Amino acid sequence: MTDLVAYMNGVGEAARRAATLMAAAPTSAKNQALLALARRLRDSGPALAAANERDLAAAREAGLDAPLVDRLRLDAKTLDTVALGCEQIAAMPDPIGEITGVKRRPTGISVGQMRVPLGVFGMIYESRPNVTIEAASLAIKSGNACILRGGSEALHSNLALAALVAQSLEEAGLPAEAVQLINTTDRAAVGLLIAMPAFVDVIIPRGGKGLIERISRDARVPVIKHLDGNCHCYVDAQVDLEQALVVVDNAKTQKYSPCNATESLLVHVDQAAAFLPRIGRIFAAKGVEMRACTRAFAALLEVPDAKLALATEADWDTEYLAPIISIKVVDSLDEAIAHINHHGSHHTDAILTTLHVNAMRFLREVDSASVMVNASTRFADGFEYGLGAEIGISTDKFHARGPVGLEGLTSMKWVVLGQGEIRQ
Amino acid sequence: MTDLVAYMNGVGEAARRAATLMAAAPTSAKNQALLALARRLRDSGPALAAANERDLAAAREAGLDAPLVDRLRLDAKTLDTVALGCEQIAAMPDPIGEITGVKRRPTGISVGQMRVPLGVFGMIYESRPNVTIEAASLAIKSGNACILRGGSEALHSNLALAALVAQSLEEAGLPAEAVQLINTTDRAAVGLLIAMPAFVDVIIPRGGKGLIERISRDARVPVIKHLDGNCHCYVDAQVDLEQALVVVDNAKTQKYSPCNATESLLVHVDQAAAFLPRIGRIFAAKGVEMRACTRAFAALLEVPDAKLALATEADWDTEYLAPIISIKVVDSLDEAIAHINHHGSHHTDAILTTLHVNAMRFLREVDSASVMVNASTRFADGFEYGLGAEIGISTDKFHARGPVGLEGLTSMKWVVLGQGEIRQ
Repeated sequence: MTDLVAYMNGVGEAARRAATLMAAAPTSAKNQALLALARRLRDSGPALAAANERDLAAAREAGLDAPLVDRLRLDAKTLDTVALGCEQIAAMPDPIGEITGVKRRPTGISVGQMRVPLGVFGMIYESRPNVTIEAASLAIKSGNACILRGGSEALHSNLALAALVAQSLEEAGLPAEAVQLINTTDRAAVGLLIAMPAFVDVIIPRGGKGLIERISRDARVPVIKHLDGNCHCYVDAQVDLEQALVVVDNAKTQKYSPCNATESLLVHVDQAAAFLPRIGRIFAAKGVEMRACTRAFAALLEVPDAKLALATEADWDTEYLAPIISIKVVDSLDEAIAHINHHGSHHTDAILTTLHVNAMRFLREVDSASVMVNASTRFADGFEYGLGAEIGISTDKFHARGPVGLEGLTSMKWVVLGQGEIRQ
Repeated sequence: MTDLVAYMNGVGEAARRAATLMAAAPTSAKNQALLALARRLRDSGPALAAANERDLAAAREAGLDAPLVDRLRLDAKTLDTVALGCEQIAAMPDPIGEITGVKRRPTGISVGQMRVPLGVFGMIYESRPNVTIEAASLAIKSGNACILRGGSEALHSNLALAALVAQSLEEAGLPAEAVQLINTTDRAAVGLLIAMPAFVDVIIPRGGKGLIERISRDARVPVIKHLDGNCHCYVDAQVDLEQALVVVDNAKTQKYSPCNATESLLVHVDQAAAFLPRIGRIFAAKGVEMRACTRAFAALLEVPDAKLALATEADWDTEYLAPIISIKVVDSLDEAIAHINHHGSHHTDAILTTLHVNAMRFLREVDSASVMVNASTRFADGFEYGLGAEIGISTDKFHARGPVGLEGLTSMKWVVLGQGEIRQ
């Protein structure tokens, strides 16, 4: 343990030193490192495959399920995708150094704000090794340093990828320690990483709810946390029915596992008889189980071959991530908003409506990171929002909310330009 | 203790309910409440004086020092100042509901961000009862609810002020529970307030470093914390000497107690002989003790009647809040920046220079909430920056940095406007 503490302190100190250099790094050097990384990723297929094969073999030996083994795999297609991601981030504008809102004050000073890096972020993630490159590339472009702690089952792959990152940084004249991977699988390293306020400014965990709750509870620095996505679609009293069917179908069934998939459908009582049997037929055809309130249950009884059950109170609070949806008939927009704010997870919620006033009330009063009108909840994503990349999705309100891109890794400091002004 | 837990949970639940109503409150109602509060503050002098007198008498009886008793006093002038503050906040634009950066995406959806309240903030503060009104008025304008915990020595004054706030909220048709004052002096209430993530979104402590460190350590929600202000002035190799003398004098001596007063002076070696004896004479005349490095000490020896001592290593890290200044000669801008980033408290630091390149490097590379060129550090203040009001000053980088006004009590949520778009 003494050795581990010394190791982590060394990593932290090196990250803090590197962060100072990265904050002042020219845009051209940061882009050069990103393009070098893309090139190395494409050129290093065989070496990476050898490292990756060690993790894959260990995973198979440990009897991991095939989908879990697949998530570890670094094939040529995955490498090309992450290389392309590095090139896209290189092509984006540099967020650092932007000065905004400069205003002259009556005292004579000019006051504005400059965008600067946060400093050092720690990232804790599971399995997929491509997250190593995503985190590294966002750190480089945003002028931060980062300390990465990947899953133990991906250690050899991650070490090989981190070596490419270090080489690319050095090629561009930047400190290799700007991106460090923790090279031990000792679980105590996580506990140390999240409790080093002198060296780490923010922790970004990516993984299951259990991991994130544990980290949030024990962290001694801020955490950009992404808990569950219990997302809603609400079909309003006046609505384009055909459009609502297409959007609700997409929001639920386009993919069941993402956090922005809809888990609960609310329907205004005036549309229940018209809408529910039709969406019920679509869900039935796709094998989606419907857990309905008594009124929705009655409206859905006519659907042939429906997997239909009465909802329990727990259903309103559940993120299924599966072909299951809870369905409730509500009497008003007020009831819909209150239900979403009470039972939802403040992630993403959509209204389907033709009424402008209701659309505006929903946008303003639903307390979620993403609020949508007549669009699928599946759009809640950094790439779809045009952020270019996404380090995570925040279900918090503090600092960053919703998809977090480069700007979420920065902060604004105050800049005062004077000509010898003094305070009276 | 069971009673206290029940009481605090009740306060928390009421705040959460009120926050929902405040988030949707019209600007006109919020301004009406602020103007009503200003009127009631001016009209309630005698009633407030009676409540205030109970606190003053208890303070005198407890043998508090005269300056501490004075900080408790709510006289007509103080009341007029806080009433004026309410009117100024009423006159400011409403930050809530602002939608910015709406862009059309290739998929057809439009994506932007809407400014919304954080929800509920808890404020913990000592002595001065006018903070009760400052916090209440910022909460009202920003559409938040707040739970206030003032100092026990000001309880009667605070309760009387909180009653005026509640009446003003009700007069405007807003929930009285939007601003609640904890009506017990039980210290355990603070421990509960900072550990109710279901009801409180952020804690803002105002007080001594000990209080803030304790709260930051124990809080289960984010804290906007203001630790110390070890602020620097750096006199560069090329400088307008007359201007530098005026600014450094002001930064140190205009007032000794504020957090934005300069505590440490760095002077480039090329200016040491010209600058130090002159600023030394000014400091000596004002009785400011100088704790100097060996080179600065040598340059200051010629100053008559100087309170001069050799600095110890601890001096570089000390916020004196007193007529004492540490002084160091440095060989380069690099050394100055490194010294400030290492020993400073990331609060406010200024460069005095005529060199544009050095000014720009200082702004970018000094890692402080406020960085200044040719201006007194004493300007680091919400009012001087044009924020209209200030709930506190953050020495953190996360969320809000430096003086925190209305915007620091808000967050941005994503808004998606569609016409039936779905994710492919």
